[in-house]
Amino acid sequence: MEFESFLVSLGTSCVLFVVLMFLFTWLSRKPGNAVVYYPNRILKGMDPWEGRSLTRNPFAWIRESLSSSEQDVITMSGVDTAVYFVFLGTVLGILVLSGVILLPVLLPLAATDDGIKKITDSTSNGTFSQLDNLSMGNISKSSPRLWAFLAAVYWISVVTYFLLWKAYQHVSELRAQALMASEVKPEQFAILARDLPPPPSGQTQKEFVDSYFREIYPETFYRSLVVTENSKANKISEELEGYEKKLARTEAIYAETKKRPTNKIGFLGLVGEQVDSIDYYTEKIDEMVRKLEEEQKSTLREKQQNAALVFFTNRVAAASAAQSLHCQTVDKWTVIEAPESRQIIWKNLNIKFFPRQIRQYVVYFIVALTILFYMIPITFISGITTLKNLQKILPFIKPIVNITFLRTILEAYLPQITLIVFLAMLPKLLLFLSKAEGIPSESHAQRAASGKYFYFSVLNVFIGVTISGTLFDTLKKVEKNPNSIISILATSLPRSATFFLTYVALKFFVGYGLELSRIVPLIIFHLKKKYLCKTEAEVKDAWFPGDLSYATRVPGDMLVLTITFCYSVIAPLIIPFGVTYFGLGWLILRNQALKVYVPSYESYGQMWPHIHTRILAALLLFQVTMFGYLGAKIFVYAVLVIPLIVITLIFAYVCSKKFYLAFKHTALEVACRELKETPNLEQVFRSYVPTCLSCHKPDDHQFEGALSRCQLTGSSAV
Amino acid sequence: MEFESFLVSLGTSCVLFVVLMFLFTWLSRKPGNAVVYYPNRILKGMDPWEGRSLTRNPFAWIRESLSSSEQDVITMSGVDTAVYFVFLGTVLGILVLSGVILLPVLLPLAATDDGIKKITDSTSNGTFSQLDNLSMGNISKSSPRLWAFLAAVYWISVVTYFLLWKAYQHVSELRAQALMASEVKPEQFAILARDLPPPPSGQTQKEFVDSYFREIYPETFYRSLVVTENSKANKISEELEGYEKKLARTEAIYAETKKRPTNKIGFLGLVGEQVDSIDYYTEKIDEMVRKLEEEQKSTLREKQQNAALVFFTNRVAAASAAQSLHCQTVDKWTVIEAPESRQIIWKNLNIKFFPRQIRQYVVYFIVALTILFYMIPITFISGITTLKNLQKILPFIKPIVNITFLRTILEAYLPQITLIVFLAMLPKLLLFLSKAEGIPSESHAQRAASGKYFYFSVLNVFIGVTISGTLFDTLKKVEKNPNSIISILATSLPRSATFFLTYVALKFFVGYGLELSRIVPLIIFHLKKKYLCKTEAEVKDAWFPGDLSYATRVPGDMLVLTITFCYSVIAPLIIPFGVTYFGLGWLILRNQALKVYVPSYESYGQMWPHIHTRILAALLLFQVTMFGYLGAKIFVYAVLVIPLIVITLIFAYVCSKKFYLAFKHTALEVACRELKETPNLEQVFRSYVPTCLSCHKPDDHQFEGALSRCQLTGSSAV
Repeated sequence: MEFESFLVSLGTSCVLFVVLMFLFTWLSRKPGNAVVYYPNRILKGMDPWEGRSLTRNPFAWIRESLSSSEQDVITMSGVDTAVYFVFLGTVLGILVLSGVILLPVLLPLAATDDGIKKITDSTSNGTFSQLDNLSMGNISKSSPRLWAFLAAVYWISVVTYFLLWKAYQHVSELRAQALMASEVKPEQFAILARDLPPPPSGQTQKEFVDSYFREIYPETFYRSLVVTENSKANKISEELEGYEKKLARTEAIYAETKKRPTNKIGFLGLVGEQVDSIDYYTEKIDEMVRKLEEEQKSTLREKQQNAALVFFTNRVAAASAAQSLHCQTVDKWTVIEAPESRQIIWKNLNIKFFPRQIRQYVVYFIVALTILFYMIPITFISGITTLKNLQKILPFIKPIVNITFLRTILEAYLPQITLIVFLAMLPKLLLFLSKAEGIPSESHAQRAASGKYFYFSVLNVFIGVTISGTLFDTLKKVEKNPNSIISILATSLPRSATFFLTYVALKFFVGYGLELSRIVPLIIFHLKKKYLCKTEAEVKDAWFPGDLSYATRVPGDMLVLTITFCYSVIAPLIIPFGVTYFGLGWLILRNQALKVYVPSYESYGQMWPHIHTRILAALLLFQVTMFGYLGAKIFVYAVLVIPLIVITLIFAYVCSKKFYLAFKHTALEVACRELKETPNLEQVFRSYVPTCLSCHKPDDHQFEGALSRCQLTGSSAV
Repeated sequence: MEFESFLVSLGTSCVLFVVLMFLFTWLSRKPGNAVVYYPNRILKGMDPWEGRSLTRNPFAWIRESLSSSEQDVITMSGVDTAVYFVFLGTVLGILVLSGVILLPVLLPLAATDDGIKKITDSTSNGTFSQLDNLSMGNISKSSPRLWAFLAAVYWISVVTYFLLWKAYQHVSELRAQALMASEVKPEQFAILARDLPPPPSGQTQKEFVDSYFREIYPETFYRSLVVTENSKANKISEELEGYEKKLARTEAIYAETKKRPTNKIGFLGLVGEQVDSIDYYTEKIDEMVRKLEEEQKSTLREKQQNAALVFFTNRVAAASAAQSLHCQTVDKWTVIEAPESRQIIWKNLNIKFFPRQIRQYVVYFIVALTILFYMIPITFISGITTLKNLQKILPFIKPIVNITFLRTILEAYLPQITLIVFLAMLPKLLLFLSKAEGIPSESHAQRAASGKYFYFSVLNVFIGVTISGTLFDTLKKVEKNPNSIISILATSLPRSATFFLTYVALKFFVGYGLELSRIVPLIIFHLKKKYLCKTEAEVKDAWFPGDLSYATRVPGDMLVLTITFCYSVIAPLIIPFGVTYFGLGWLILRNQALKVYVPSYESYGQMWPHIHTRILAALLLFQVTMFGYLGAKIFVYAVLVIPLIVITLIFAYVCSKKFYLAFKHTALEVACRELKETPNLEQVFRSYVPTCLSCHKPDDHQFEGALSRCQLTGSSAV
């Protein structure tokens, strides 16, 4: 890639971003778009423009993001989101502090060293000598100037340790404060007991569980809820809901057109008898309600599984119970803190102890295979997607490529776009695999998937792209001299510098531009609203924004961090790019968290230890790489990097010992804080009854009575 | 070594054993010796010869050992001892079941194979061809008969898995039963909290601890006992006890001689003023009691440390509290189950969380060094202590050696005795190192030392002796062809077979013979009684038997087991030796446990997981060795051993997952059983007050009042 095409790509990205930002300013002011740009505020019952209707400043959102406190984020979007911002802020801090020292020191040092020929150690595959002058490649071998680069490695490491320590302390406090809050949170009164042994004959599972826990906790045990296999009840419940929606829709049409709508009852509504829709759906709903009630009874009676939620009368009892060994045989009556009811993965609860272990190892094995074999197509793609290669393979594109402007754009973006598309396919697969491990909560599955994705992206994207660049360039050299991965990585890193500069720039300008402007959701919303939605509920479905889904954002951010870390000393110019990425990310996502996204679960910051470990893994990779690169520069004091590697490992060990357990369990000193009010335990219990098992008569004014009756009927299991 | 000298050594050992056994029968019948042969019964207030005075059968003790039930052992000597017998019984079972199949199958197979020259693969260093015929060395290379030996490896492994699984289940039940027993055990009501943060100003440590735990456990918290630095009080208390003993002794002399004894008060009673002893000691005791009281007050007030014992009103609360995370920062307020008061290592309680970690790793490092460097002297000794070498180094012993009988004895025993003496020096060092880790309880420190000693003995004795045999024999061969340790070990194993046969025989005949006859303690007791003891207390001190100290026995047994395992297929003749070792051990130690030794602590079988892991480690070593040896026999199906190795690892993993946690913590379903009586919590609490801090007036009839007063005075800390 030439310097020009690099600048062009940067320029176009930047212009695109500015355009998107102004688009956002303009669109977000229109009242009709409020549900797209302020859904979180609307759902929380707040005025979207509260106190802001007068400003016409296009940068108002930036001021609002900057002035919002952490407490605002927690109130609007939960602790998990706040922890994500601690991550962004910490990384931003690390990069800013690094850049402040590294840029003014290393760039002049590199630029003024002329002792080396430009051919051997280029920062790009082409003749991109402008950037070369500013990188470590420009330093002569064994030069005393390398001391400054070694010192830079130390500086970055120390800054990282310091800020990470602060961040861990801070997150730990955030978690403690959330857990000791005086509001009643149902999950703090419950534990999840799995691997229940079969009940002795003459006892139901429910009675067995009750007697077991009542004996151990005679005073604090409240009641239990045995998990049932309710896939059938679920299906009926969903069907019922579908009919209700259809009825509401039909009624809306009737109100609009004053003509009773009709439909055919055959396949897909295309064949069969023509009937009056309102009557038909009402009848169907009645039928479904009856079927559901029957199914509920038989589910509660016959489909009890070997897991149960156990409720306690106070938080300390529950927190303590979740941490204690209950059965002399460890693979029975295993307990964990109950996840929130909305994030329980019900179908995983029935999986037994050792099958869970086996599943876990099988999944690890499959993931390892995936990581190893994804490398092959990525290597192939990163080799193929240079224009020169494409021309050879697809000669017919030659005329297009010869147009200079198009050629420049293509050269700049083609490999990056391929990579991004390629990576977008993976998260779903990893989430599926993580759930197959038998993990009982959504947030945990997300964390597990996120962790796998991080190692995948670092191994495949970063190391893969870097080394495959070397492979295509100097295949013969490598074949003759199969060196260790470290030295290969170290020497081939500089050549991929511009690839990653462009990659990062693309991610922040285009990625965050699209994120802020919400063009796609906006268009989809307006189309749906105009042509499909008839009822209020349907309109709401059309604009409901979903989750910030930070678990899938983190691996992407971590990849950028890894890239920035690893190039920070070799080509310090990458630091401003990293700073922009995390700075813009912080600003824009803050806006989105406060106004747009609605969190779908809350894990009280349990993501943090994962993030922390992976930041340290990135730091370790950076240190190892620098050890190799300084060694390749024939700088004997490269060994001084080794103590840093040891310190990183010790730091990781100390942090995990000091903080981790409090993220796995709830500390009792935290759980023992007093509540604002006496908890309504019946309500706590009910929040865990699956929707399809609670009575389904939302329009019935005897709702309360119905639910009670329902529970009386099902009292053998609930 | 020649076959003759082997038989002679066996014969003399056996004769020695028989002599010792008859000596035991004769000596144990004399009433004056009862305190040496039946101290445990006497201390428990039972008649030593209850129902047995009439039998004159010298084997009566064998019948009694065999007929004693596990419950008897638990009653007389505790769960730990019962678990030790489960270990002996399990290993005996494994060896018997192995021998029953292996001996009749493998010995004829080996004896009838004549296809090989006797020179290359000898079972002894000399020309010991009689044993060769019965070992695997006699099988030709690639012979199909090797299938039987491969099958033998499978048979032993399967038997081991099966019996170990049964044993683990059984021990787990023993532990559960002991913990759910309806007697009040003080340690079940207490937890040990360490790493207490400094109290806020204006509060004492004691108040701080109380308020902390009272907030978390408003209903079940009873009181706390802050650990104090009482080395000074301890010293005074010991001095006081010394003076009391001297006073009692002086009074006894006075009663005997009717002459008031005098002594000099200067250095060692040799110089200084002559005083009346009774008056002097009485005065001294009064002074010490005063000093002790003052010191007690100041200790309780000023020397509070950052650890405390916290008492609860019921067992479930304590068991649950010991397993729960209390503080958001994991390195503060760490809790474990309280050890018994008699086994607390008080001076370790003050060591903080991270210093403990550091100490642990430092100790591991030192132990690793010890293991590596002890190998050098052992190698040296096992080379030097053959008579031929000794003659070269010490030519003056030649005349002695030339006496045939002496020569035979020396040749048979010299290397083994050296080895045993050498190994006897180590346990103290390892126990000291383990305590230096900061372990809070004696039993845990013993376990840790025992584990280290096992790895030491296997690495140094077994591998060391085997390989150094090779080194001295075929040093040049090894130098030219530095193969992997497995193949060296496998090929050199057969050469050391007779060394280990003799080693095992020596251990059981002489070791257990001395154990049973208790000649040494008997002689010491009679000497002391005759010449030193004046008072009842002194006589009791002279015969008090001490502990079975199974923790130091286990590594020795494990070494024998490792040897037997590894040779079981190569030279199946070792199996009867192993069976005799564990059979005799079981019999004799059962006798000793029931009648002699008094357990000094009880850990409810926490030793078992350690033993279990190490049996599996021995099995693994056996499998790896057999893989190497079968490979050395050019038997391609040797690879079939690899699945066994994998199975062993999986078996270890499954056992540890299924059972281990219940040995680390008390399962709540076990702790929740009802007690026979309402526990006297004051008594539970008092059992943890260190002797030097409880008021020291044993003769005072106002004892109860004194202790209460003492606690009132010290109530700020106790």
